[in-house]
Amino acid sequence: MTPYPDRLAAACRAAGSCLCVGLDPLPERLPAGVSAEAFCTAIVGATAPSAAAFKPNLAFFEALGREGGDALAATAEAVRAAGRLLVLDGKRGDIGETGARYAAALYDTLGGDAATVAPYMGRDSLSPFLAHAGRCAYVLVATSNPGAADLQALPVGRGTLADRVAALAVEVGAGAAGTVGFVVGATRPERLAALRAAYPDVPLLVPGVGAQGGSAEAVVAANAGGPLLVNASRSILYSSSGPDFARAAAAEARRLAALLPPP
Amino acid sequence: MTPYPDRLAAACRAAGSCLCVGLDPLPERLPAGVSAEAFCTAIVGATAPSAAAFKPNLAFFEALGREGGDALAATAEAVRAAGRLLVLDGKRGDIGETGARYAAALYDTLGGDAATVAPYMGRDSLSPFLAHAGRCAYVLVATSNPGAADLQALPVGRGTLADRVAALAVEVGAGAAGTVGFVVGATRPERLAALRAAYPDVPLLVPGVGAQGGSAEAVVAANAGGPLLVNASRSILYSSSGPDFARAAAAEARRLAALLPPP
Repeated sequence: MTPYPDRLAAACRAAGSCLCVGLDPLPERLPAGVSAEAFCTAIVGATAPSAAAFKPNLAFFEALGREGGDALAATAEAVRAAGRLLVLDGKRGDIGETGARYAAALYDTLGGDAATVAPYMGRDSLSPFLAHAGRCAYVLVATSNPGAADLQALPVGRGTLADRVAALAVEVGAGAAGTVGFVVGATRPERLAALRAAYPDVPLLVPGVGAQGGSAEAVVAANAGGPLLVNASRSILYSSSGPDFARAAAAEARRLAALLPPP
Repeated sequence: MTPYPDRLAAACRAAGSCLCVGLDPLPERLPAGVSAEAFCTAIVGATAPSAAAFKPNLAFFEALGREGGDALAATAEAVRAAGRLLVLDGKRGDIGETGARYAAALYDTLGGDAATVAPYMGRDSLSPFLAHAGRCAYVLVATSNPGAADLQALPVGRGTLADRVAALAVEVGAGAAGTVGFVVGATRPERLAALRAAYPDVPLLVPGVGAQGGSAEAVVAANAGGPLLVNASRSILYSSSGPDFARAAAAEARRLAALLPPP
């Protein structure tokens, strides 16, 4: 399989942006009479012209039980059919055969191009997600939530715990079949700029734009041209709660994509 | 619902041990002609007389797709029918509505009494799992894998990152509806003893006994009588690969349970 960075660059060129549309199908926010599957596949179809990637949030699909499993499989198929990247956001992290099983479920069964991975258990919880050629493990480094500071900002040696996680991930990724990426929140562009300066070639997945308040322009400036996906979820998905939801989502995706040129 | 520590104590008394049987249904190790569902429910039935709790490892069920979802639901039902505790091991960790959705799936839909939770995102990734009365969030503190030292052992202030995670978890748990527990590996009993000394009342979930090499006796001594579950998985599950697998598992569970008295 073509290395992930090349596929990422191609998807961004094809979409004309580095926008990633996050898929959080909240039952109480779906338009009346529209199933999670119909909603997500319609969103993918409507926004794919502006989006390089789609990021299903696995929690929302799992919470729907069997219906959610079917919706996720159909959504993955729609993303593939649109020629876009599939980033599976489950923040898994486990070791040995357990980690290998999670990775196989995400990359092989669901056909994910990338997955988000939690680092607390250390290198043997990252390596199973890096054993798949052509795929990317976006490791949680500096998240955009208020509690991120509790652990990630702790001083560890000359940097923070987040810096240490970034270095560990890159070390584990060296020579691995897959590619290491970082999840770095949009809400603190100076942190993003520092990580980008230290790791010019690492793909960054940046949530927190839109509903969470991060600025697309600030992220693009801080990224300085490196491989990038910028995620927006609810500001796109729920632009309209009426039957025009897909058209409204497409318009909001176009608006954001114009602020997010391919790196 | 009765608080988790009381239900834990009652389950340990009923089983005469603090043994937790981990359920890792590896397709290639199942006895010939036995499905994951038949395997897990038979193991639960055979070992419940010696075990206070069961810990399905969600990765192995998810990897089986729909069949795995059915097997997990049936296994959960078997654990409830046996009057034992259900610890769902998915190491989830996410914030806000996403975390709430994971917690609802584990505690409400599947009926878990407890879940394992990853802490890297900080307090708002722990709190959703602590919002359910009578349930326990076992937070990853000091795991038993070789890579655990990469981050968990880093010096942070006067202790390690693991110490900081433990303190954060207890802080978040204070006043929450649910109970905070810690995952602490069996492979370093001195660490377990130090955490127990600092937190006499926190339930500990201790993996790493059996196939991973930790000693049951050392764990019991280090625990010093606090609330405890000691997990063994493959050494019990795969005692025999023949049609006598359930009887062999029951015998191994009895042997381990004798080393693991109720605290």
